[in-house]
Amino acid sequence: MALVEVSNKRVILKKYLTAWEIGLLGDEMEVVTAEAVPLSVPAGSSAVLVKNLYISCDPYLRNRMIRHEVVTSHGVMKVISSGHLDFKADDLVWGMTGWEEYTLINNPESLFKINYPEFPLSNYTGVLGMHGRTAYVGFFEMSKPKKSEYVFVSLACGAIGQIVGQLAKIKNCYVVDSAGFDEKVNLLKTKFGFDDAFNYKEPDLEAALKRCFPEGIDIDFENVGGAILNAVLPNMRLGGRITMCGMISQYHLERPDGVRNLMYIIMKRLRMEGFVIFDSITVYRQFEEEMAGYLREGKVTYVEDIVQGLDAAPAPLIGIYNGRNVGK
Amino acid sequence: MALVEVSNKRVILKKYLTAWEIGLLGDEMEVVTAEAVPLSVPAGSSAVLVKNLYISCDPYLRNRMIRHEVVTSHGVMKVISSGHLDFKADDLVWGMTGWEEYTLINNPESLFKINYPEFPLSNYTGVLGMHGRTAYVGFFEMSKPKKSEYVFVSLACGAIGQIVGQLAKIKNCYVVDSAGFDEKVNLLKTKFGFDDAFNYKEPDLEAALKRCFPEGIDIDFENVGGAILNAVLPNMRLGGRITMCGMISQYHLERPDGVRNLMYIIMKRLRMEGFVIFDSITVYRQFEEEMAGYLREGKVTYVEDIVQGLDAAPAPLIGIYNGRNVGK
Repeated sequence: MALVEVSNKRVILKKYLTAWEIGLLGDEMEVVTAEAVPLSVPAGSSAVLVKNLYISCDPYLRNRMIRHEVVTSHGVMKVISSGHLDFKADDLVWGMTGWEEYTLINNPESLFKINYPEFPLSNYTGVLGMHGRTAYVGFFEMSKPKKSEYVFVSLACGAIGQIVGQLAKIKNCYVVDSAGFDEKVNLLKTKFGFDDAFNYKEPDLEAALKRCFPEGIDIDFENVGGAILNAVLPNMRLGGRITMCGMISQYHLERPDGVRNLMYIIMKRLRMEGFVIFDSITVYRQFEEEMAGYLREGKVTYVEDIVQGLDAAPAPLIGIYNGRNVGK
Repeated sequence: MALVEVSNKRVILKKYLTAWEIGLLGDEMEVVTAEAVPLSVPAGSSAVLVKNLYISCDPYLRNRMIRHEVVTSHGVMKVISSGHLDFKADDLVWGMTGWEEYTLINNPESLFKINYPEFPLSNYTGVLGMHGRTAYVGFFEMSKPKKSEYVFVSLACGAIGQIVGQLAKIKNCYVVDSAGFDEKVNLLKTKFGFDDAFNYKEPDLEAALKRCFPEGIDIDFENVGGAILNAVLPNMRLGGRITMCGMISQYHLERPDGVRNLMYIIMKRLRMEGFVIFDSITVYRQFEEEMAGYLREGKVTYVEDIVQGLDAAPAPLIGIYNGRNVGK
């Protein structure tokens, strides 16, 4: 028997953040070396001990950083020791974990097996993991697209938006996207083959949408909220669907922006629906197989930023809120 | 052959109203005697000439008063002359018509036959007509109620709201309503048997809803919009449905109120959906039979205000926007 205990480096929150406190400044997190962890699960436990290989850095984390503890997110992990019948040592899995080297996971039912290890494992923090599933469920199940419909993705440079836009192209939809920097706007058009794109810092968003969608919008995959959502509403077509996935423009506001154009929900018979991917686990295998196929055929491409080591983990999270990143 | 032409008194708009112009003041409409109309449909036409018996006075009319012409609404009519195979003289019908004595209806496919003339015919401008259908479709089809759910009707003293609340009681739901005057608040609790009610002029609507719905709201049947909708959102339960039927608080505003709490659509996985009853004609016979049954059994009661004569027609429409009326 080799090493039975290891030290465990982790990222913890130094400061509590209130729910609507101003965005991340950079001094909220620190990297510490916590007490050593045993390398096997406690006797009789059905938990799983994992070594964290990749952790994910996402806008939604901001909403979770309200308790003074280790930062959590989803990640890709290797099972080190298992008390659960469905898992054994060396299994590759993904799911919620901690920003630390080793994590004891007490609800291993929440973990997903990695069935296509031939892809870069980091893909399971994104296109083959939570973001891919969010895009897949949010677009195919929630938005109920029909062939050739008009689709707007308000944050197509983000981890989820880039996949939604590509799924919409697979469905032969007309896809327009917006981003906050001109270089991203160009990336969307060229790299992902979207039909049009604009900078959401344009002063008249309603006119920009009207220009890009002279026929109106059937599906709005909404990840921004606020002013862009307000501008989308009058541009929706009769019977359109607004799938509410996120509101990155609003998370840091103590007093969120008011959306004035809700009258169009009645006038245009719109459906606006919110969802959180954690609610839906049934379609995972179908999603994983289908998305793996799209990746193999090159129908979906995926941009990832990867940083090495836990010490480097906080910086990109802060960057997300400043609009610096492209893709995942 | 008797009289072949009659004079035709009608209510017309004197002034154009822009879409968001301030509410009705009373000088927008005038009653005139238009040129005489022949008492039979033109030869070869498939139109239907009707004598208008009852016309309906509703908040939605405000949005239609943007052209300089006879005011239109739905009403109850007797067929005088028919060029259409489905209709003959003396048939009782309801549907869209003009605020005038006689109307030539060029699309008689839009008319509904009155199958239960034993009820007061005026009921077909309301509980057995458009408002009843709106309540029925909006509650049963759109809001998908389950037994014992928590239902909020924001304008339960209105023509549609009073029916929705009673349908919700038939479905064994817990029903809370709001109204703008204390006497109406009491009427809702006593006459219609709702479980609780409050005055929507209370300063803290969010607290009022929390008090009435400590467990939260499953279904919001929304007819008011603005501040009350904003207060409803944080009080919704997971998976709740907001059925958007109208926004009477907003029609007269050039700049509608901003709704800030849309984040809850995601956090609570809500569905917010708008509808207009004109889209749905399929369930009419099923609705009419079911609602006639509820009326006979006393499970639904209905409050109507009736005024006599076209000269008196404009006043109650103005009254609606001042919150003076109870019921239809």
